Amino acid sequence: MGKLERQFDKELGELKKNLLHMAAVAETMIDRAISELVNRDERVAEPIPQYEEELNRLQIEIDEAALTLLATRQPVAIDLRFILAATRINAELERIGDLVINITENVHILAEQPPLKPLIDIPRMAEISRKMVRDSLDSFVKEDPLLAHAVIMTDDQVDALKDQVIRELLTYMMADPRAIERALALILISRHLERIGDHATNIAEDVIYMIQGRDVRHPKTPKERPTEPQP
Amino acid sequence: MGKLERQFDKELGELKKNLLHMAAVAETMIDRAISELVNRDERVAEPIPQYEEELNRLQIEIDEAALTLLATRQPVAIDLRFILAATRINAELERIGDLVINITENVHILAEQPPLKPLIDIPRMAEISRKMVRDSLDSFVKEDPLLAHAVIMTDDQVDALKDQVIRELLTYMMADPRAIERALALILISRHLERIGDHATNIAEDVIYMIQGRDVRHPKTPKERPTEPQP
Repeated sequence: MGKLERQFDKELGELKKNLLHMAAVAETMIDRAISELVNRDERVAEPIPQYEEELNRLQIEIDEAALTLLATRQPVAIDLRFILAATRINAELERIGDLVINITENVHILAEQPPLKPLIDIPRMAEISRKMVRDSLDSFVKEDPLLAHAVIMTDDQVDALKDQVIRELLTYMMADPRAIERALALILISRHLERIGDHATNIAEDVIYMIQGRDVRHPKTPKERPTEPQP
Repeated sequence: MGKLERQFDKELGELKKNLLHMAAVAETMIDRAISELVNRDERVAEPIPQYEEELNRLQIEIDEAALTLLATRQPVAIDLRFILAATRINAELERIGDLVINITENVHILAEQPPLKPLIDIPRMAEISRKMVRDSLDSFVKEDPLLAHAVIMTDDQVDALKDQVIRELLTYMMADPRAIERALALILISRHLERIGDHATNIAEDVIYMIQGRDVRHPKTPKERPTEPQP
């Protein structure tokens, strides 16, 4: 392998490393936001926006590195698809960060009022979507289409949990108008978590496209169709 | 200008045309969904999923054309940024289509029940976000940074309208538990419209980045910061 090729591999490795770092930051953000929700502990709230700043910075860095690679290396085939995937995945991760910020805003609303109910499904949704984020990135760095498919399949669980959460919270709202504001905040948190799962699904689809050069984003069978957030 | 350059320009023109077509489809979808909401006329509901299919198809076409251009023409500078912008903008437009599908699902819930209230702010939100989609694409094809900036500034109006809609609907929910389901459907519609505005804002930011090679996606001043959907 020539010196140029080794240098190119190093640059691709750097892209990968930065994306994994973004994913780790996004995962930490999800954990913190939900821990704050469950433990009603506002003291940990401070750092979350700082994490988001870091995601924004990394997104720009990755985009610039990708642009430079495209312009200077003029890659083809799998390398080209890898770099394009990187510029899509960083945008998905940055949006996950934005969604966590949205979650924390609802967490703050809830912190000012007594707890509405014990939270079971929402922390479970958070755990599943956090794992989806990690697995989607793992499938990217390992170029593992099976893991990517597993992520896409898991999305149904998150969707089902969100439907369950909304159904239950609607009964709380109907029973007591004083519950409405808190129930709405919890509904919105569950929707944000579901959208995090959607973004992980988008990443997994990009990975499959990258590896197989085949588009799974709009399959013909409605069963497999990645769902968008629904009420 | 050589034959190769003319061919390349033709291919870029084709990309542009397809993106404009996607935007026109997305605009039509928004119009139809809101007209169905306001006029409570389910008969026009049928074609909307067909439009979404068309968006999905166009997205894949544009991605493939972009990939081919990158691999065969190995463009640099503004041409490279133009092609990368095209692959981002088509994803934004496809998501706008998904959001309209989400809107129609809530419209169907509302169609089965008596009207909750006369709708003023939601149609206005729809009109503004539809115009944002059009203007963001116009700013792309005309490479007009001022128009792109205008789109980004308009996003505040959509956000403010959504806050107003939610505040008003919360009072309906509090006053009458029978209003909760319909009020929630209207809240979700307003959030979907706000997210359409966010996607148009993303497009406008991509346009500015493309033209100026400068990242406006994460400006330092919080005032200008593109907002993500909030409850």
